[in-house]
Formats: sequence, structure tokens, C-alpha cells
Amino acid sequence: MNIKPLGDRVVIKRLEAEEKTKSGIVLPGQAKEQPMMAEIVAVGPGAVEDGKTIPMEVKTGDMVIFSKYAGTEIKYDGEEYTIVSQRDILAIVG
Amino acid sequence: MNIKPLGDRVVIKRLEAEEKTKSGIVLPGQAKEQPMMAEIVAVGPGAVEDGKTIPMEVKTGDMVIFSKYAGTEIKYDGEEYTIVSQRDILAIVG
Amino acid sequence: MNIKPLGDRVVIKRLEAEEKTKSGIVLPGQAKEQPMMAEIVAVGPGAVEDGKTIPMEVKTGDMVIFSKYAGTEIKYDGEEYTIVSQRDILAIVG
Amino acid sequence: MNIKPLGDRVVIKRLEAEEKTKSGIVLPGQAKEQPMMAEIVAVGPGAVEDGKTIPMEVKTGDMVIFSKYAGTEIKYDGEEYTIVSQRDILAIVG
Amino acid sequence: MNIKPLGDRVVIKRLEAEEKTKSGIVLPGQAKEQPMMAEIVAVGPGAVEDGKTIPMEVKTGDMVIFSKYAGTEIKYDGEEYTIVSQRDILAIVG
Amino acid sequence: MNIKPLGDRVVIKRLEAEEKTKSGIVLPGQAKEQPMMAEIVAVGPGAVEDGKTIPMEVKTGDMVIFSKYAGTEIKYDGEEYTIVSQRDILAIVG
Amino acid sequence: MNIKPLGDRVVIKRLEAEEKTKSGIVLPGQAKEQPMMAEIVAVGPGAVEDGKTIPMEVKTGDMVIFSKYAGTEIKYDGEEYTIVSQRDILAIVG
Repeated sequence: MNIKPLGDRVVIKRLEAEEKTKSGIVLPGQAKEQPMMAEIVAVGPGAVEDGKTIPMEVKTGDMVIFSKYAGTEIKYDGEEYTIVSQRDILAIVG
Repeated sequence: MNIKPLGDRVVIKRLEAEEKTKSGIVLPGQAKEQPMMAEIVAVGPGAVEDGKTIPMEVKTGDMVIFSKYAGTEIKYDGEEYTIVSQRDILAIVG
Repeated sequence: MNIKPLGDRVVIKRLEAEEKTKSGIVLPGQAKEQPMMAEIVAVGPGAVEDGKTIPMEVKTGDMVIFSKYAGTEIKYDGEEYTIVSQRDILAIVG
Repeated sequence: MNIKPLGDRVVIKRLEAEEKTKSGIVLPGQAKEQPMMAEIVAVGPGAVEDGKTIPMEVKTGDMVIFSKYAGTEIKYDGEEYTIVSQRDILAIVG
Repeated sequence: MNIKPLGDRVVIKRLEAEEKTKSGIVLPGQAKEQPMMAEIVAVGPGAVEDGKTIPMEVKTGDMVIFSKYAGTEIKYDGEEYTIVSQRDILAIVG
Repeated sequence: MNIKPLGDRVVIKRLEAEEKTKSGIVLPGQAKEQPMMAEIVAVGPGAVEDGKTIPMEVKTGDMVIFSKYAGTEIKYDGEEYTIVSQRDILAIVG
Repeated sequence: MNIKPLGDRVVIKRLEAEEKTKSGIVLPGQAKEQPMMAEIVAVGPGAVEDGKTIPMEVKTGDMVIFSKYAGTEIKYDGEEYTIVSQRDILAIVG
């Protein structure tokens, strides 16, 4: 993929329901913040604070839980992706 | 459990009413902020501030009091968990 | 008491009206912010700022004035307590 | 007085109208922020910022102008006092 | 004048319309923020940031333009003054 | 182009729909934040934080995805441009 | 001009429509933020952060684009000027 997120952003690909079941995690449809699962496909260099770059905690290939309403959706080569800040990623799975 | 929270987040398992009574703590149902008890099952690496990681104050196995409305609920292997920031944990019990 | 508050939080026990009178302080019932008196029964390690822990200004046994609407109420061994941030404690009495 | 304010708070005693006139200052009754005069009767140790205590600018006995709506009123030995942050004190008089 | 402002506050005396005309500046009556002219009559020691006092940019006697709605009005020896933060002073004139 | 953005701002030229298709990216018309593609035509020196200039992550000629509602539109030599902060640029493409 | 802006403020003189056309820039009348062109006629010393003065990016004589709703309008020697923070200046032209 030739999309390079800026700062602490990442590009993620949302997982379909069947894939979630295989990984053992099911996210409730009516949860208050509606978390979702996704795979990280591109990672930014990290946010800069006081002149220092904060290393990212996630890497390409990580399966993550993120807040459904976070981020911006884009379409690339016919597939849908979401660009989110790492702050909106709650946890790495597996 | 193979869920690794990011930053200062933790994964917690809420306690049932009977378990609370055994520990000697009862949380009132109509309290203003509705605190609840839970067990910590996974702990993030800690928030990063000015390039330094702040060590976490809680560890796996701790029984904690947290604010009911905080966090995001997930289902994992048929059990319900909540991912919350350590900021929303008020105290360790026992 | 086996409750350890996190960060700059403390556990306090509210004083009854008669106890207040003995200490020489009376807090008006209709005050704008409704301050109340309490005894500190447990103290957190202190907030962390820029990697340094800020020492707490209060200690167990201190009688304090705090803002009535601050904090979270819990019940422990049949008694009611409140968990508040030290920021919501206005002064030490005596 | 045995009340020790925390952080950058001070305990003040509001002045009556006649006292104000003697000091040469009259505060208008309909001013937008309704400033008032008071005497400082107790001073906190100062706020802590980045691990350093910021020295207080006021001391016991100072006559000050403060914003009327700031602070919390308490009654002590039959007298009324107000606990305010030093941030709400505009100036020292005399 | 025996009023010592705290922090980065200053005491100012508003100018009458005729005085403004002499200085060559006229401030429009219907301006969006309604700027006004005033003379600085007392200056605070400066705000404290990270333990360091920031030197003040204005001094007693300076003619300044400030935002009309800023500050707190007081009456002193029969004259009206305003206490404002230096942040609300836009420019020095002359 | 003789427009020099200040701070961490950049001047961008929005791409037409056909150009987007060629690059392989299609941005959905009803996306929640309506991202758009653009080419960077001028870059500011970078924001200043604690006295240090933060280097920019983008450069002239980069194709970027940005949030549609961000920035200020200007017309220059008959062409339309947008001035945005680098914070509103989500990713570099290609 | 004898107006010295404080902090990171500048005094600017708005350009008339004809002047804009000569410089090759036309600003749309219905733009979302309504940018305007102006010439810088006075520059403040710069904002102070952590005890250090941040150097200004603009200087007297610069032609700039700024947000129309920013700043405070004043009249000086029969001419209208605007005092704005450098933060509200988007770019230097030419």
C-alpha cells in the first residue's frame, strides 16, 4: 500500500464479522462506544512532542480494537480503509 | 488473555454482586457516579509524556473500583470485559 | 482499611454535624459550593507529572474541608466513604 | 486560626463597608464582576508545577481585592470566612 | 497609588474621548471588540511559568489600547480604575 | 508560487475527480468527514514549540489526503488554492 | 507609526480590492473563513513561552493573508487599522 499516514495516524482495514468470530472476539452491536476490529495496514512515524518523536505502539499486521466513530474512511483500489489516530486504538489482539 | 491494551489502558472483568459482598465492599446502586468493582486482567505499557513512559499503578489480578460509565465493553471467548484508561480507576482494594 | 487510592486521590470519612461543632467549624447548609468536613482515612501515592511524583499535602488522620459535590461514594464494612482527588480538598483543620 | 489551606489557596475575611471607606477604596455595587475587599488570614504553601512549589504573592495580614463570586464560604468560631485560590485575588491594597 | 496588582495584572485609568483625539487615535464606537485607551497606573510582578517570572511588557505611564470588556472596575479615592491582565492589552501607543 | 505559509501551514491545490481515479484512490462523496485529495504547492517553516521548530512531514509536490472542511480558500492567478495546517493532512499518497 | 503591539500581535492595514488584483491574488467574497489581504505596519516582540521569546515570522512591509474576523479594528490619524495575533495570519505573499 502506498499511503503513508502523518504523525501518529495509522491506516486500518476493518474486519468482517466472520473474521472476528475466528479470532475469539465478538464486539457487541449495541455497545456504548461501538468498538470494532481491524488490521493495521500502514503506520505513521509517530507524533512529535517537545521536538522528540514518540515511537508508535502498533505495527503493520497488528489486529486491533478501535472506536467505530473514530477516523476518516477512504477507498483505495476498490477497497475501503480508515485513517485513525493511534489514540483511538484501544488494544492489540493476539 | 491475548489482548494487550495500548497506552495507560487496562482490560477489566466486572465483579458480580455476590463477589463484592465477600470482599467487604458494597457499592450503592444510586451513587452519583455509580462506581463498580472489577478485576484487572491485562495492563497497558503506560502513557508516554515528554518522551518518558509513566509506570502503571495497577497490575494484573488487582481488584479495583472504577467509574461505571468509563470505558468500552468487548466480548472475548464468550465473556464480557471492559477496556478503560487507568485514569478512570479510583482505587485498589485489598 | 485496605483501600489504596490511585494517583492524588484520598479516601475520606464525612463527619457528622456534632463532630463539626466540637472542632469549632460550622459549615453553612446553603453555601454556594456546600463545603463539608471529613477525616482522611487513606492517601494515594500522588499524581505523576513529567515523570515525577508530586508529594501529597494531606495524610491519614487529617481533618479536612472539601467540596460536597466532589468524589465518588462507596460503602465498606457497612460504613460510607468518599474517594476524592486532593484537588477537591480546600484546607486542613486543626 | 488553625485552618491551613492547600495548594495556592488562602483564607480571607471579607471587610465591612465602613472599613473599605477608611482605606480609600470603594467597590461599586453593580460592577460586572463585583470585586470585594478582604483581609488574608491564612495562606497555603503554593501550587506545585513541574515538581517546584510556586511561592505565594500574598501573606497573612494583606488587604486584597478579590472577585466576589470566587471561593467557598465557611463559618469558624462564629465568624464567616472564604477560601479562595490566589488566582482569584486581583491586587494587594496599601 | 497603593494598589499592587498580582501576577501579570495591571491597574489602568481609562482615557476620556478628548484625550484620545489629542493622541491621534480614535477608537470606533461600534467596533466588534470595542477597544479603549487607558494609561497604566500600576503594574504586577509578572506571571510565573515553570518557576520563572515572565517580565512585564508594559510599565507605569504607558498609554495602551485594551479590550473594553476585559477586567474588573474599582473605585479608589473617588476615581474609577480597571484591573486587567496584560494579555488583554493589545498595544502601547506613542 | 510566491505564497509562503506561516507556521505549520501548507498551500494545497485540490485534485479533480479524474486525477483521483488515476492514482487509484477514490474518496467517497458521503464519507463522515469528507476527505479530499490535493497536491502540496507551498510549505511553511514548521510550528515552533518550546523554542524549537518542528520539521514539516510534507514537501512541495506531495499528493495528500486532507479533511474537506479544513482550511481557507484563496484564488491566485485565476486558480483556487487552500491554506491548511499540516495537522489537517491525514496521509501522503504514492 | 507609533503603535507597538504586545506579544505576538501585529498592526495591519487592509488592502483595497484594486490593490489585491495587482498582486495577482483574488480572495473570494463568499469563502468559508473570508480571508483578506493586508500590509503589516507594526510588529510585536513575539510571544514568550517557557521564558523564551519566540521570534516573529513576519516583518513590517510584508503583504499577508489573514482571517477577516480576526483582530480588533482601530482608527489612527484618520486611517483604519487592525491589531491581530500572528496566529491569525495564514501566509506572506510575494
